[in-house]
Amino acid sequence: MAQPLRVVVIGGVAAGPKIAAKVTRLRPDAEVTVVEKGEDISYAGCGLAYHISDVVREQKDLMATPAGVVRDPVFFRNVKNVTVHIRTEALEIDRRSKRVRLRSREEGREWWIAYDKLALATGARAVIPPLTGVNLRNVFVLKDIQNALAIKQFIEKEQPQEVVIVGGGLIGVEMAEALVTKGVLVTMIEMLPQVLIPLDWEMAFQVQKHMTAKGVQVLTSTKADSFEGSDKVQAVIAGDRRIPAEAVVLAVGVRPEVRLAKEAGLEIGPTGAIRVDEYMCTSDSDIYSAGDCAETTNLITGRPTYCPLGSTANKQGRVAAINICGGGERFPGVLESIICKVFDLACGTTGLSERAARALGYDVVTSLVPAADKAHYYPTARTITLKLIANRATCRLLGAQAVGPGDVAKRLDVAATAITAGMTVDQVSKLDLCYAPPYSAAMDNLITAANVLENKIEGNMRGISPMELKRRLDAGEPIVLLDVRTPAEFERGHLPGSIPIPLGALRKRCNELPRDKEIVVYCGSSLRAYEGALILRYAGFENVRVLDGSVVTWPYELVK
Amino acid sequence: MAQPLRVVVIGGVAAGPKIAAKVTRLRPDAEVTVVEKGEDISYAGCGLAYHISDVVREQKDLMATPAGVVRDPVFFRNVKNVTVHIRTEALEIDRRSKRVRLRSREEGREWWIAYDKLALATGARAVIPPLTGVNLRNVFVLKDIQNALAIKQFIEKEQPQEVVIVGGGLIGVEMAEALVTKGVLVTMIEMLPQVLIPLDWEMAFQVQKHMTAKGVQVLTSTKADSFEGSDKVQAVIAGDRRIPAEAVVLAVGVRPEVRLAKEAGLEIGPTGAIRVDEYMCTSDSDIYSAGDCAETTNLITGRPTYCPLGSTANKQGRVAAINICGGGERFPGVLESIICKVFDLACGTTGLSERAARALGYDVVTSLVPAADKAHYYPTARTITLKLIANRATCRLLGAQAVGPGDVAKRLDVAATAITAGMTVDQVSKLDLCYAPPYSAAMDNLITAANVLENKIEGNMRGISPMELKRRLDAGEPIVLLDVRTPAEFERGHLPGSIPIPLGALRKRCNELPRDKEIVVYCGSSLRAYEGALILRYAGFENVRVLDGSVVTWPYELVK
Repeated sequence: MAQPLRVVVIGGVAAGPKIAAKVTRLRPDAEVTVVEKGEDISYAGCGLAYHISDVVREQKDLMATPAGVVRDPVFFRNVKNVTVHIRTEALEIDRRSKRVRLRSREEGREWWIAYDKLALATGARAVIPPLTGVNLRNVFVLKDIQNALAIKQFIEKEQPQEVVIVGGGLIGVEMAEALVTKGVLVTMIEMLPQVLIPLDWEMAFQVQKHMTAKGVQVLTSTKADSFEGSDKVQAVIAGDRRIPAEAVVLAVGVRPEVRLAKEAGLEIGPTGAIRVDEYMCTSDSDIYSAGDCAETTNLITGRPTYCPLGSTANKQGRVAAINICGGGERFPGVLESIICKVFDLACGTTGLSERAARALGYDVVTSLVPAADKAHYYPTARTITLKLIANRATCRLLGAQAVGPGDVAKRLDVAATAITAGMTVDQVSKLDLCYAPPYSAAMDNLITAANVLENKIEGNMRGISPMELKRRLDAGEPIVLLDVRTPAEFERGHLPGSIPIPLGALRKRCNELPRDKEIVVYCGSSLRAYEGALILRYAGFENVRVLDGSVVTWPYELVK
Repeated sequence: MAQPLRVVVIGGVAAGPKIAAKVTRLRPDAEVTVVEKGEDISYAGCGLAYHISDVVREQKDLMATPAGVVRDPVFFRNVKNVTVHIRTEALEIDRRSKRVRLRSREEGREWWIAYDKLALATGARAVIPPLTGVNLRNVFVLKDIQNALAIKQFIEKEQPQEVVIVGGGLIGVEMAEALVTKGVLVTMIEMLPQVLIPLDWEMAFQVQKHMTAKGVQVLTSTKADSFEGSDKVQAVIAGDRRIPAEAVVLAVGVRPEVRLAKEAGLEIGPTGAIRVDEYMCTSDSDIYSAGDCAETTNLITGRPTYCPLGSTANKQGRVAAINICGGGERFPGVLESIICKVFDLACGTTGLSERAARALGYDVVTSLVPAADKAHYYPTARTITLKLIANRATCRLLGAQAVGPGDVAKRLDVAATAITAGMTVDQVSKLDLCYAPPYSAAMDNLITAANVLENKIEGNMRGISPMELKRRLDAGEPIVLLDVRTPAEFERGHLPGSIPIPLGALRKRCNELPRDKEIVVYCGSSLRAYEGALILRYAGFENVRVLDGSVVTWPYELVK
């Protein structure tokens, strides 16, 4: 009788348990062992902020199956036929003898475990910047359940008034919402000029404005230099600012946990994560890796990227498991799709941002379309701003971003699918998406945004981004701003120095406009502005542009 | 100077206004005339039921732009540079002289209007079955604003107790919700064995059950034979049933309005709609057609189909307009995607149903996966049942259906995009969809359903549909039903005659099961049943199947 397949999995949070479970499904006779250095296994790491805010009330909900059974070592033994060692560290991989040295943190016991196939799912660790005072009490990170419990206990016991979050990424903004929900005054410090760096600036700025409206003080282009306090943290020093803080949450990113792989001589990729091929196999054909410790490929650029996400970890884990069992499954890569709830907004991105696409040398064309996410007359309709990024040369969609109180997720997921398939803007504009007034407009946001892109590519519409317009106005260029909305809309707020002529009157009144200057037309969302620009062009005006996204996405001052 | 392009558009509801507006955008010098026989133009025909239920309070909301301007003839003149004749009928097309004879319904005046390009957007008309009593008062259809106002006024004036809806299609189920919302007792009569025929039976049955729970009496396989009453309708006669009715809403479908096209000798397709090529051009190269009067192509089968929807009308109208102006834009076809709100459920389909795919001769494999639409621990998570239909030979996705209180629309739209791109099940399972707990599970419903399909295709999982299981049980076949849920779940309701062994105990207790009989394993959603089947298979049981969709989608009796 053949020896059973011995599989050792290092890491028990997301990819690890997935690998273990899938291996035993495919090879029920396999001896599968999971080694986890922490207390907890198979928990929802992405739900931690929601437990801090009590949106997810019970800690065990983050660790239970949909049927309510907690995924502990007993569950893994009985249901999955998997042995789990918690509080157990993997110290060393002996690739020649195919074994791993383990140490139990409780008993201090050390032993070797043999493998036929090894899977590294060692995950990531939170970056702790080497700043003075970073080890003071009440300086937290949020990476695992124990971190979340520490923050939650601190809030409930100390009822702090002021907390500083360092970092405006996904974890930072989720923590901002969680802390505000718990009644804490939050200051967010972000080194870069914007929060949520995967988004383009004008999209991220909408999120920043919303956070500010919810009471968060957001300081961009601001770097934390040190933490002040004796024993407990009392303030964050950033340049000449001193920001009082009863606690600090460090949310400046994560790094792949690769010590074990590195020491074993496995190849590390240019991103610093464990290099794997599309079968999730490392440079050792008996060692696989998946999840937050593994590198992956950007589907558009074909380049290595590091993109640690629970969704990716699960998919990669499944692929690794199939191949561990002798299959030939591939994981092609990612679009670096992300989505995030920030108070009443959803925001996210998939594929390349405009910034990234330009940096890669693409001839980029974009559309920026704010519109209702459902039939505009349907009472639950909410606005979303959708930005599409395309390659002018091939007309292929490269990226999509969306922000708003409406249904952002649907449009991003459809865009992700279209980008993966290599669809052109024309193909996207013809998609037969499901339509009924409670779910979308007859022309879905994505269809409209694709049509705008097509209008730009065909030369029917010349756009100008809010950033370019602002820069040129600030430089004193003699640009005429034409507001084609109704007088009531104009009264509620318009770009400084605009001329108001409602669209319906424009054909008759266009002689009020100077013919020798560049005219930028805007409205609420750019729909009427596009019509207005066409009317002017027909009337012989030669230099007319439409403000992308118009008033809804204008990130600067409006006057009344 | 060249003559301006003269474009005449017949029909002013959806495709017609779209064509007119787009033509004037591309060719601002064009003389564009829209002719509409009814009172109203450019209204949201898909929102009518929501006006009846007061979800959309104001009639004008259905006729206004997102900025709140009513799209009347004055609006079309001032903003779009389009002439609109309402209450004006097109009587005849003289193709040789390229002119159309019109009659104003008010003045009785007749005149000819010349065209360079003609667009037929004559729409559809509600089918009125030739039954005794069909012309009685209070027998309504719901096709245009005037119909909606008639029904709305009737309800508000007469406050009826009992209304019968004939037809269980999209309009029928929307009307059922609208009438129940207004306090009316509704009976729905459907000739076919199920409501919503584009869905497969077990999916439609979930909708039917929900309607029943909301107080609608749903009579399937029931045909209305006649309407009883003198002056006003009083009852519907269906076989030996007499169903009292103070009003009847006929919702038995629509037919394309093709009289004008037919009389002009234009080609009519096999579906009875106006035949067009992918440029939306009819058999006369100067006449285009779009919207509910035009035929289109099913993207999967390549066959002509009739699929009248507002979303399609808008896309087709844009394509027709571009080509009228000399462009070369194509409309490739549709997936017949539909979605519908039915009380607290959403339901819809895209691509081929299992029934349609089998009828077309595909070797079909399906998955039926009920699961939470968000992280299951997130408080707004709701269930959806997702059914995927694939071609076993090519592993390509052919269709998707979804029903549930959760976010059905997102999964259907992603599936529609994947089907359009010709993606395989494997490609769908690797999609980098956006993940955060408020929007999806780490393994999105679509990813899981694709994985289940893959498991079935690879032979790791053998499924049995609820219908097949029921048929075989009813035939007295000695099938063992194994329920692997917890005792508490078993108590709340299980399939009659099941043996309960919780999944966690199955490895130890599988000897309680007979080895010589077929075993069908089920749980809540099939997740644990799949694990259970693998445990049994490993223990040497050879004939084990998993009940597709398990208890959540079991459409028959459960016992306690």
